[in-house]
Amino acid sequence: SGLVLVKNPHLDLLEEDVLYHLDLGTKTHDLPAMFGDIKFVCVGGSPNRMRAFAQFMQRELGLPGAGEDVADICAGSDRYAMYRAGPVLSISHGMGIPSISIMLHELIKLLHHAKCRDVTIIRIGTSGGLGIEAGSVVITDMAVDSSFQPRFEQVVLDDVVVRSTELDKDLAEELLACSRDIPDFPTLIGHTMCTYDFYEGQGRLDGALCSFSSEKKLEYLRRAYDAGVRNIEMESTAFAALCGLCGLKGESCCFHPL
Amino acid sequence: SGLVLVKNPHLDLLEEDVLYHLDLGTKTHDLPAMFGDIKFVCVGGSPNRMRAFAQFMQRELGLPGAGEDVADICAGSDRYAMYRAGPVLSISHGMGIPSISIMLHELIKLLHHAKCRDVTIIRIGTSGGLGIEAGSVVITDMAVDSSFQPRFEQVVLDDVVVRSTELDKDLAEELLACSRDIPDFPTLIGHTMCTYDFYEGQGRLDGALCSFSSEKKLEYLRRAYDAGVRNIEMESTAFAALCGLCGLKGESCCFHPL
Repeated sequence: SGLVLVKNPHLDLLEEDVLYHLDLGTKTHDLPAMFGDIKFVCVGGSPNRMRAFAQFMQRELGLPGAGEDVADICAGSDRYAMYRAGPVLSISHGMGIPSISIMLHELIKLLHHAKCRDVTIIRIGTSGGLGIEAGSVVITDMAVDSSFQPRFEQVVLDDVVVRSTELDKDLAEELLACSRDIPDFPTLIGHTMCTYDFYEGQGRLDGALCSFSSEKKLEYLRRAYDAGVRNIEMESTAFAALCGLCGLKGESCCFHPL
Repeated sequence: SGLVLVKNPHLDLLEEDVLYHLDLGTKTHDLPAMFGDIKFVCVGGSPNRMRAFAQFMQRELGLPGAGEDVADICAGSDRYAMYRAGPVLSISHGMGIPSISIMLHELIKLLHHAKCRDVTIIRIGTSGGLGIEAGSVVITDMAVDSSFQPRFEQVVLDDVVVRSTELDKDLAEELLACSRDIPDFPTLIGHTMCTYDFYEGQGRLDGALCSFSSEKKLEYLRRAYDAGVRNIEMESTAFAALCGLCGLKGESCCFHPL
């Protein structure tokens, strides 16, 4: 049917569903009228960047109001920022798996309540590249954890549930094809490693703590490269797992800054 | 000596230490001049709330400029917001362990470079209460994980390192004593459970996914209560572990909203 799936039998019993961190709700807002025609959702860590992206989409799509400021739909909350440009929603998710997970739970319920169909979601973030040219874009074919396995371990109460982190392969190929029209950004498909920590988790030598040698770091990153990892960030496994479970066609493509 | 400890032998070899997510650095900013006299750091998830807290402290301390707007010291980055009011720094950390960890690594290096002494850090966040009155404040004597154990499992490269999550007991008692002067907020000392996930991790029945019954949720929360847990949030174990390792006197006291 192309509808977004929620997998929660308790949800139908709620008189009102409050999307706390988005400052939206089923009683306070007419979600089908506000969002029913959304076809694309783009998400990234930084609120400023997601506002700039909405303004960029407004210009690209030749929408009225292009060049003007765009309104933050979640202005009543400072947890996330949300903008729209025609059929495209642009939302920030902060940094790390817990932060993106809260946003995705509420976004998925929003798309469900709004009866959206055939929605594609793309994470457009930044990441650290591994053995690739600075300025490259990595399209993720598979999100892997710090042991290079394509899995996301979700703690549910005190149980650990293991979830698949596969992303939409056709969408990855489609995005790669688009990239051929933009010669400025070398683009490749590869595995993306997702960590819980920026400094110690990613082998950085410049955190407040660092208990490993630069040799050990290099040996680890070499193993990651050999396992197919081309970039490292902090959200992709949870993003892939949640999108997959809720029938959202999802892809992650991250920019490795200069 | 009262100095903040960094435990990273590589740091001294850096020509410049860039605190990326705070938009500060040792070459671009005179950190001792800007921050050398800081004695208290208060941190919380929401940037708006941390700005309001800095304005509150400005009034409470009778500082010049009270009532006026305060400047965001990290205005060049939208990852975190930072304000100061006299000897008090007020910083947002976003939601979840990965987000607070990035901020704490860079804050600890900032305090180290600035040669601050005898700094106390207090997390002033919100949390969900467990068997306590709405409107209560919980001062954390121990941060525990989802198995109610006082530990933080940090993934360093692909190793798991287990860290202690004890907080400063004297500071907890001192804060409890302060609370007696403020009759509006029932305040107690208890364990704080820290989870990686807001919906499935905390037994909420209103996420996009929910695979457990309300009976299983209640049984889990009852076990948590019996283990001494009085509130649940998403940052305290990482906060306690990092502060403890770097010699920062730390406490977490969270408000359970109405």
